[in-house]
Amino acid sequence: MTLRIGIVGGTGHSGGELCRLLLNHPGVGTVLPTARSGEEFERVHPNLLGSGLRFVTVEQLQERAGELDVVFFCTPSGEAMRSAPRFLEHGAKVIDVSADFRFPDPERYAEVYGEPHASPKLLSEAVYGVTELFREQVAAARLVANPGCYAITTVLGLAPLLRSGLADLDSAVHLAAVNGTSGAGSKPVSEVMHAEAFASMLPYSLEGHRHAPELETHLAPFAGRELCVDMTTAHGNFVRGIYIQASVAIRAEARAGVDRAALLDLYRDHYADEHFVRINAFAKKGRLNSKEYGVYPSLNAVTGSNFCHIGVDYDPVRGFAKVVAVTDNLVKGAAGSAIQNMNVMSGLDERAGLGHYGL
Amino acid sequence: MTLRIGIVGGTGHSGGELCRLLLNHPGVGTVLPTARSGEEFERVHPNLLGSGLRFVTVEQLQERAGELDVVFFCTPSGEAMRSAPRFLEHGAKVIDVSADFRFPDPERYAEVYGEPHASPKLLSEAVYGVTELFREQVAAARLVANPGCYAITTVLGLAPLLRSGLADLDSAVHLAAVNGTSGAGSKPVSEVMHAEAFASMLPYSLEGHRHAPELETHLAPFAGRELCVDMTTAHGNFVRGIYIQASVAIRAEARAGVDRAALLDLYRDHYADEHFVRINAFAKKGRLNSKEYGVYPSLNAVTGSNFCHIGVDYDPVRGFAKVVAVTDNLVKGAAGSAIQNMNVMSGLDERAGLGHYGL
Amino acid sequence: MTLRIGIVGGTGHSGGELCRLLLNHPGVGTVLPTARSGEEFERVHPNLLGSGLRFVTVEQLQERAGELDVVFFCTPSGEAMRSAPRFLEHGAKVIDVSADFRFPDPERYAEVYGEPHASPKLLSEAVYGVTELFREQVAAARLVANPGCYAITTVLGLAPLLRSGLADLDSAVHLAAVNGTSGAGSKPVSEVMHAEAFASMLPYSLEGHRHAPELETHLAPFAGRELCVDMTTAHGNFVRGIYIQASVAIRAEARAGVDRAALLDLYRDHYADEHFVRINAFAKKGRLNSKEYGVYPSLNAVTGSNFCHIGVDYDPVRGFAKVVAVTDNLVKGAAGSAIQNMNVMSGLDERAGLGHYGL
Amino acid sequence: MTLRIGIVGGTGHSGGELCRLLLNHPGVGTVLPTARSGEEFERVHPNLLGSGLRFVTVEQLQERAGELDVVFFCTPSGEAMRSAPRFLEHGAKVIDVSADFRFPDPERYAEVYGEPHASPKLLSEAVYGVTELFREQVAAARLVANPGCYAITTVLGLAPLLRSGLADLDSAVHLAAVNGTSGAGSKPVSEVMHAEAFASMLPYSLEGHRHAPELETHLAPFAGRELCVDMTTAHGNFVRGIYIQASVAIRAEARAGVDRAALLDLYRDHYADEHFVRINAFAKKGRLNSKEYGVYPSLNAVTGSNFCHIGVDYDPVRGFAKVVAVTDNLVKGAAGSAIQNMNVMSGLDERAGLGHYGL
Repeated sequence: MTLRIGIVGGTGHSGGELCRLLLNHPGVGTVLPTARSGEEFERVHPNLLGSGLRFVTVEQLQERAGELDVVFFCTPSGEAMRSAPRFLEHGAKVIDVSADFRFPDPERYAEVYGEPHASPKLLSEAVYGVTELFREQVAAARLVANPGCYAITTVLGLAPLLRSGLADLDSAVHLAAVNGTSGAGSKPVSEVMHAEAFASMLPYSLEGHRHAPELETHLAPFAGRELCVDMTTAHGNFVRGIYIQASVAIRAEARAGVDRAALLDLYRDHYADEHFVRINAFAKKGRLNSKEYGVYPSLNAVTGSNFCHIGVDYDPVRGFAKVVAVTDNLVKGAAGSAIQNMNVMSGLDERAGLGHYGL
Repeated sequence: MTLRIGIVGGTGHSGGELCRLLLNHPGVGTVLPTARSGEEFERVHPNLLGSGLRFVTVEQLQERAGELDVVFFCTPSGEAMRSAPRFLEHGAKVIDVSADFRFPDPERYAEVYGEPHASPKLLSEAVYGVTELFREQVAAARLVANPGCYAITTVLGLAPLLRSGLADLDSAVHLAAVNGTSGAGSKPVSEVMHAEAFASMLPYSLEGHRHAPELETHLAPFAGRELCVDMTTAHGNFVRGIYIQASVAIRAEARAGVDRAALLDLYRDHYADEHFVRINAFAKKGRLNSKEYGVYPSLNAVTGSNFCHIGVDYDPVRGFAKVVAVTDNLVKGAAGSAIQNMNVMSGLDERAGLGHYGL
Repeated sequence: MTLRIGIVGGTGHSGGELCRLLLNHPGVGTVLPTARSGEEFERVHPNLLGSGLRFVTVEQLQERAGELDVVFFCTPSGEAMRSAPRFLEHGAKVIDVSADFRFPDPERYAEVYGEPHASPKLLSEAVYGVTELFREQVAAARLVANPGCYAITTVLGLAPLLRSGLADLDSAVHLAAVNGTSGAGSKPVSEVMHAEAFASMLPYSLEGHRHAPELETHLAPFAGRELCVDMTTAHGNFVRGIYIQASVAIRAEARAGVDRAALLDLYRDHYADEHFVRINAFAKKGRLNSKEYGVYPSLNAVTGSNFCHIGVDYDPVRGFAKVVAVTDNLVKGAAGSAIQNMNVMSGLDERAGLGHYGL
Repeated sequence: MTLRIGIVGGTGHSGGELCRLLLNHPGVGTVLPTARSGEEFERVHPNLLGSGLRFVTVEQLQERAGELDVVFFCTPSGEAMRSAPRFLEHGAKVIDVSADFRFPDPERYAEVYGEPHASPKLLSEAVYGVTELFREQVAAARLVANPGCYAITTVLGLAPLLRSGLADLDSAVHLAAVNGTSGAGSKPVSEVMHAEAFASMLPYSLEGHRHAPELETHLAPFAGRELCVDMTTAHGNFVRGIYIQASVAIRAEARAGVDRAALLDLYRDHYADEHFVRINAFAKKGRLNSKEYGVYPSLNAVTGSNFCHIGVDYDPVRGFAKVVAVTDNLVKGAAGSAIQNMNVMSGLDERAGLGHYGL
């Protein structure tokens, strides 16, 4: 099979990353990224110098809708919900890397994104694309809502713990999340210039990030109940990467049986058959509270790859499980998981085009 | 007045930073940093090339104890509690930048640092040196326990909120803290080589950091009750800086009156007369949940300075106050606040030698 | 004395740095930076939060010209040559941090900057402000042309060698120079966004940088003849700093007497009395060609300071002297040397306000 | 075909990178990296968590020499020249990523590396592995000397210009080269700790780098004469990457016909059929000497890839051609080009396992 691909929104970081990965995908033929007329593909994406890819306009892509097998949306909020139906009607599968189809409930969408949903009927059909956890639904879908970068990392990081029933969810789940500056978009903005953002931590959306309700929606089924996600976000001094650290209260009656080893077992069992999720379980050598590196995942272990590394620990004094999960926000957090979904939707090897380990 | 200064432990990051700042301090004459025999001062601290400072051995410093006005300890845990008495006996004031005198209770020390305290009687005398909050006690002290870098930043960041009575302290205070790699010590370690730690987030001590009990001890008086500090720590991709982000539950009955403006007022009032603590209160322009930069402190605004910048917000959906506080871990988090304490203890202008704004 | 200062162009990196340094200068009172109406000072320069400085418009500053002792220009090319006369007429001294007065010859200016000079008569009066090398002229000047950041670093780095007569100047001097991204200006530009410029080297102006003719003009007097400066430039992955590395051919007949030790002697003698220029002369331990760190200046040794560190070596096989010189482009390369010139012009201690060592 | 691979020296950056790339190579089966007994593979290379690779000892690898198709050496100087013969005798092909076989002349080796060569007879047999320029010889070789990271980037960058006859080689070729800190080795060293090397430029070997004679040896055939390479080196603030910038004097009589366009034509013609070498020829929009980004290669365009991007320009005032070439020092500068050579030596598609574009 040789898939023909459209990418609506080919100039940003996610669109560029899709191109980069699809150029090396054995099952993909044509790749048509869109841009406004006049943009030069290789000047926008100089890492793809000599690749031969060229931009088309959205109009040109729409005219060729009938020739496409899969269409990705890497657009600002509001675009995919308006344009996806047209491609679906022509028989293409749609994977939305933007936020438009992440809430089954249109009112929740309107609340979080500030405008009514343009295709409410499609919402119930859209599958939330954490491949590892919804593989069968993804395989059957024609419309996948690719999760937010913070969200996919957190869902992978917390699903085993929430499923275990160990968590005390009368307390909020506390999430401190750090994103690379590629997550700030590609439009030049003063605060994210190199001279401003370098060697810094740049916090934003402290009053509540849009991925918090996304997480509350999609973690609840694992927890078997409603839950509250208190989330804070910042950009760190790197381009690629999501680093999330979660604190989850353990139920008082369960604490006696919880320690790092027990949590590691839980996570390794849960992800034993998953290629892209790996648990860092290196043995600690030091005594409690001594500073010890290397026994949890570092962010840069996954840079450039579709892997999610997860580490866990337990604070026995205060009764909190700690989870660290890391991904590359442009790969597992966007383009890579989107391709993983495409592979599953198209009957290809799930790993096709996603083989490289982190740098 | 011209102070004569000893620095026990002059080869590490804090010791070097003390030298750097004291070289530019108008009230300081002699500065004697210690090192093992054979170490060359300017090769260890190439930023101080041509400064004329030279190392002495600890033995040489002890012999000259009677000539010293102030002695700083920048040593690993366990050293200051053994050596400080000797300098105190000779009439020098001691400012311990290490952790030895941070717990009034010797048993708590033993619990956290794993060995019995060598000078338990001095513990009750030691003043915890957050100058802004304990200025009178510092002025009267001959022994100051300089706070940990995470701790001072957090205490400054949370004292106003805890004092206000708004916090629901049946819930834990959740603290996500990021430190520069200068906080990892100066001994070469594989995981903190540039090639390993660059462009990464390197988590450590997830089972409970030693600054958590330090915080629980020293925040309790502001809260008027015991409290639980759930803390996670990582090194970010920068050399200098502490970035802390705290989530504090607001009492249900108080929530109606809390918003960002109210919290900003609380903080500006609290620190209205403080030179080194500044509140970032820039107006937001966007709608709720939109991504907006610049309305909270960025870490690099304080690099190289003794300032602490604080920002606040409120998540009205979930009822959490959010506090961001940033300092330079080597200045306000160590050498700078130590000099600020020295200034107060010696009757100098509190700002002497600490005037520079952040880079 | 309490100087009253105007800064034309207060929103960019150099203007902000002048404010930062002048806030801590013991001889300075009023500081009036300009910006377009509507700009908020502390939002533009968040490191100066709470400093109390406020922008005025250029018109407001011009109206108050008679009250000013010193006016700095931190403006794009072309502005200072038009506006400086007005301030000079009112008796203020002018220090131009832009490029307008760096060429004594108006035709050379026109050639390099692409438009005729607006105040050609002032050109012959302007003193080129490398304080260490033109101290007497600076002291007597009412108009100083502050050198370019690459240029001042290179002039300091090469003056001793060129004066020595050892160089073979029938060959070009080859200069590889790297600048921080603060040198790219403060206007948001796609290629200098954090996500684009991080962890990179970004070359520019390879066909010839404007500081090359500036250097050819101002190095010639030290060489006693014309010379050719072949220069290449790039931005590195840091915000502050100029790193220059020069290769200078040694005359065949002089090579027998040249080695690293001889060059170090030459440089230490030349700068023996200079506070802000320091020579890294740490002894090498390894054999020839073995990789050895620490025996030349590293860029970050001078970050945040007004120092210039210089290191030298000699390639005996090929006959080239090698010079490495480093400065902070915003301090010694702009605002710091401008203040050093102000100090000299105003009869203040040359080091006033510039005391801090590098971070 | 399924190749069985040994890697002598599997703990360093090059060895780890070979493992990373070979894990994703369609023609490779067994991969056996060596380490001292006791080292845990995934702890040394946490990016390869879950890969299943395990270290063997050198002795174990030697015992299995007869089962191996290809052996890579990623060892310090002196090891490969002693151990390679054993593997060659058993019929394995050897690709030496260290420096042992880069000089055809054993005396030159002894001069540069400070000890006599242990296998002088093999030197004449070893092929210098710049695949693009010596493809036929590589295909026929059983022993390939993989070039140094600086050297391969420079050879690719200068071969077209030297072949053209335009260069005036009575003048030296001047080379300013910057390497990532992964090039500093994996042994913890004080000067290359994150806290020391971050946001810096760290110069070394200014008296002459060992890759200079390597370049003089291997560039001479392209020039058709001897030449002198004046080289300076530093580590920049990134982990991966070689950035070289070369100045080459153009012969006086040829200058009239040289400009950027002519040089671009020369380079595009030369590399028209090469997959891994790409020329950045984006049109300039600005006037001469104006600062313009994006018209030359940036280092990070090739990070993680086996590509070499080259850009050129010409300084018409001074008569120098300027060449910028960038590679990833661990891929095209080491493991990637080694695999490219392996592919050619083994009759595989030259691009196998090396398809990914830069991040």
